[in-house]
Amino acid sequence: MSLKPMRQQVEEYIVGLQDTIVSALEKLDPNAPPFKRDSWIRTQGGRGQSCVFAVPEASESGSAHENLPVLEKAGVNISIVHGKLPPAAVKAMRVDHSSVPFDPLSPAVPFFAAGLSLVIHPRNPHAPTCHANYRYFEITESVQEGKESGSGKLLAWWFGGGSDLTPSYLYEEDAVHFHKTIKEACDTHGEAIYPAFKKWCDEYFLIPHREETRGIGGIFFDDLCDQTHHRLPDDAVRPRTPEDIFKFIKTAGDAFVPSYVPIVERRMKTPSTPHERRWQLIRRGRYVEFNLVHDRGTKFGLVTPGARIESILMSLPETARWEYMSDMGTDENSEEGKLMKVLKEPRAWV
Amino acid sequence: MSLKPMRQQVEEYIVGLQDTIVSALEKLDPNAPPFKRDSWIRTQGGRGQSCVFAVPEASESGSAHENLPVLEKAGVNISIVHGKLPPAAVKAMRVDHSSVPFDPLSPAVPFFAAGLSLVIHPRNPHAPTCHANYRYFEITESVQEGKESGSGKLLAWWFGGGSDLTPSYLYEEDAVHFHKTIKEACDTHGEAIYPAFKKWCDEYFLIPHREETRGIGGIFFDDLCDQTHHRLPDDAVRPRTPEDIFKFIKTAGDAFVPSYVPIVERRMKTPSTPHERRWQLIRRGRYVEFNLVHDRGTKFGLVTPGARIESILMSLPETARWEYMSDMGTDENSEEGKLMKVLKEPRAWV
Repeated sequence: MSLKPMRQQVEEYIVGLQDTIVSALEKLDPNAPPFKRDSWIRTQGGRGQSCVFAVPEASESGSAHENLPVLEKAGVNISIVHGKLPPAAVKAMRVDHSSVPFDPLSPAVPFFAAGLSLVIHPRNPHAPTCHANYRYFEITESVQEGKESGSGKLLAWWFGGGSDLTPSYLYEEDAVHFHKTIKEACDTHGEAIYPAFKKWCDEYFLIPHREETRGIGGIFFDDLCDQTHHRLPDDAVRPRTPEDIFKFIKTAGDAFVPSYVPIVERRMKTPSTPHERRWQLIRRGRYVEFNLVHDRGTKFGLVTPGARIESILMSLPETARWEYMSDMGTDENSEEGKLMKVLKEPRAWV
Repeated sequence: MSLKPMRQQVEEYIVGLQDTIVSALEKLDPNAPPFKRDSWIRTQGGRGQSCVFAVPEASESGSAHENLPVLEKAGVNISIVHGKLPPAAVKAMRVDHSSVPFDPLSPAVPFFAAGLSLVIHPRNPHAPTCHANYRYFEITESVQEGKESGSGKLLAWWFGGGSDLTPSYLYEEDAVHFHKTIKEACDTHGEAIYPAFKKWCDEYFLIPHREETRGIGGIFFDDLCDQTHHRLPDDAVRPRTPEDIFKFIKTAGDAFVPSYVPIVERRMKTPSTPHERRWQLIRRGRYVEFNLVHDRGTKFGLVTPGARIESILMSLPETARWEYMSDMGTDENSEEGKLMKVLKEPRAWV
């Protein structure tokens, strides 16, 4: 068992994971420019690093699409921040974490949050978009001014995260590969994990006004700690100590590259038509709808004073498209219609 | 004074206004396909007509931009609907309309709503986007089943609306023309109207997380009826009777074509570069952010059961673009920077 505090262990892990993922993505396309590393300091406490891929010049050059890089827009970001939570945030957290203190006279509580989040939008319509997130959260006791932040007693902690795939065209073998890789990672920590978090993912990434999911799912979870978990049976084999849950997070994080990169590799050179590009951009429009209208993280970020808007909205695609009463996807025998069918009725992939 | 009920007068007016506006837009570009007229019936009560312009094939043909139609995407929609309001909507309305009844035992109240709403996105980056809306709302007493809907006593009524301009590049003479035309229309009904509703427009179309307005404004108003109005001085000269307020609405609605169409006419053939197109698409991204994150009408529509999603989201541009940490607009001496300056600090145009 490590003697290092968990916040330090998590920080070291996500710093390394960011590097691993960015390197794997850069290796996919050695001729493309590297990701742009962009470190930042949060004046209220903490730091982060964005690793972003974008080639905005492409749209101005008018060059042929076959010479374009594999990725269209991608971001792999980490942040390690601490500070005081405003009362509204504290109240919201108490719903799932009864040990979070709430004193109406002194409602701001110290927090620590460290996480990695990524969104990859490849250019080829046959290569799916992928999103992933792994995060750790701590609430500590207030300490007197002048004392080191983080020296207060730990009152509550939890891990959250997940990863999910958003194809424009359905390749069943890709969906199976993605889910199978994630399931195998989960299963080593308890067989109840994958089914519970797969279901949670399908529920979370629903676009209610479209009555369709954003993509073909993966896993989504939050509030994983030593307490009873509302998505897992009480008697389930599952990680319960901080160290064991962190091991699960690491297994899930380490599974990201093998779950996703081979899919991009086998689709990135598939010939595509302007029709397929158009459908990809319509699907990106739905991605924008989910992120701006429904995603809790984005909504929370946009109303947080001092939040870094560029990081929050980095998940948005380079280009998105909206057509009134589009005919694309309405014919259930078309390739577009085949995707729509699984977005309307989430499937068990493994 | 007309003997016809107001709901009928409003319906007749917006039917005619839709036709006038669509004809004026079609005349701008006689070689383009006509708007697609799409009538619909609301099963819960009412009807509407969407008039939509779109040429989705353009993106697939890969044809040169100089041959593309003047408009990229446009919708001029009317709806005339009635039904019962759910309790949450009734409660929200009582804030500004104390005569709206609220009986916790029988909270659903009959309503009637008629309105025209439009969004025009021209293709040329030098031609601005325009949005307008004119609407009438009625709350009536519940009537026994079997009696004709609308036969109940009128309990509350109000008009709302406005129009606003969203350029990608600032032409001061266009902003002045747009505001001047609207101000002159307002002034014939009382000189307090334009300044109050111009200010309301700048406040309403703010994108808080970007700290910028969506465009260069126009007017925005709601809750205009025979009661005290929270945006207008009590002693102001202004329309107060239903007939006088309807006359104001008609003057404002009739001013739409002269306020906007001449601007498109003088910008639609301005030569443009891929750089300017890129900026236009980034600005369209901000349009999407406002509409999906902040616009009350869109948010209300998306959570309304049975709402027509295609009509609600018709306001979204054909294409939008997001760049991480874009350099566009950051140089205040660039043409993009000049627009940003007026979006950060709304200006008095007349």
